Amino acid sequence: MSDAYPISDATRIKRHPERGSYDRDVVHAILDEALLCHLACSVGQHVIAMPTTFARDGETLYVHGAIANRSLEALVGGAPFSITVTLLDGLVLARSAFHHSMNYRSVVLTGKARIVDDREEKITAMILLVDRFGRDRSRQTRAPYDWELDATKVIAVEIEHASAKTRSGGPIDDPDDMNLPYWAGVVPLQLVAAAPVPDPEAREPHPVPDVPVQLLPRNREE
Amino acid sequence: MSDAYPISDATRIKRHPERGSYDRDVVHAILDEALLCHLACSVGQHVIAMPTTFARDGETLYVHGAIANRSLEALVGGAPFSITVTLLDGLVLARSAFHHSMNYRSVVLTGKARIVDDREEKITAMILLVDRFGRDRSRQTRAPYDWELDATKVIAVEIEHASAKTRSGGPIDDPDDMNLPYWAGVVPLQLVAAAPVPDPEAREPHPVPDVPVQLLPRNREE
Repeated sequence: MSDAYPISDATRIKRHPERGSYDRDVVHAILDEALLCHLACSVGQHVIAMPTTFARDGETLYVHGAIANRSLEALVGGAPFSITVTLLDGLVLARSAFHHSMNYRSVVLTGKARIVDDREEKITAMILLVDRFGRDRSRQTRAPYDWELDATKVIAVEIEHASAKTRSGGPIDDPDDMNLPYWAGVVPLQLVAAAPVPDPEAREPHPVPDVPVQLLPRNREE
Repeated sequence: MSDAYPISDATRIKRHPERGSYDRDVVHAILDEALLCHLACSVGQHVIAMPTTFARDGETLYVHGAIANRSLEALVGGAPFSITVTLLDGLVLARSAFHHSMNYRSVVLTGKARIVDDREEKITAMILLVDRFGRDRSRQTRAPYDWELDATKVIAVEIEHASAKTRSGGPIDDPDDMNLPYWAGVVPLQLVAAAPVPDPEAREPHPVPDVPVQLLPRNREE
């Protein structure tokens, strides 16, 4: 398998091509860090981007929803769709209004969608999806009953085209603006976890799972 | 003006309607907290969700991009589109795999898009967009030159239909699962700012602006 995705009209980086990458490892790393994606597709007369959890297994992404979910229905019905993942890394404040920007890592991908009917693959997908919530979380839960599996629609997307776009680093001001009396720099942003809140209905304490997000330093120090 | 948006097929909350709201204040609060939206639209044969910054002025959202931006072009050309905003608030870990969930606040909206040609409105939109980076930031920057305004396409979206969807609170497990020996609860998530990093090219220090994101506690204590 090649190290780069083939380029399509949907995934070609036209603006700031120097920020783009079609490298599979770069794309995978962004996908694996994100906890949700936006699934864009046509539903009837509309075009909707639906936020949803997902999990990756090689070149396959799994998403799931209720059996009646319209977007998932449209997907496997052959409607055009794409998946976008966006990690917001910072606010970039320049001396000029024009050069304000954001630091981010994002992916846009397209592919072929199919319903996961095979029982074994469906269970594998559910395990991958639950493990996004914490390391080995699927082994610290009750596995799905048959009726729960039947009530869940799982869609596999085989990635065909994907591109990543990344901006990092500080502001790029015009040389003439460098002496303006304004603060310029980056405000780094990150998604963090505050202290886990146990269910008040819990009847006895159990170990808190390792979550896939950095804990707030305050919580680490406690 | 009514307190609620009229409901359309694109914005109707079908799944978990008890989590839905069409209230303008609820929708506005989510829009005003989010630093980016996903703009979903048809571009040629494709459907793409593009992450982008935005600003709200009453019932108008402003987005901007380079003059040649295809998505913005499609929008004002009458292609169907919608805007989704998603705030991820927490991981909800249940005792069963099936009841794992996420806490979030999201908005889907549709409306009419138009190019902002009027110079005064374009400047107002740019001020609103820059002020998303920090309180009064537009007054702590060099205002755009004419050629910078000319190189920027600003689109106004007049909101016609919008809905919010919110999940909060702990896991909802089946009564039979309550004694299972697994941790259950919520891991709260939030986007925070780490210590601002001044541009190394800065020639003298200037006050750091008030950013619209909570600073990490560690930084506050310094």
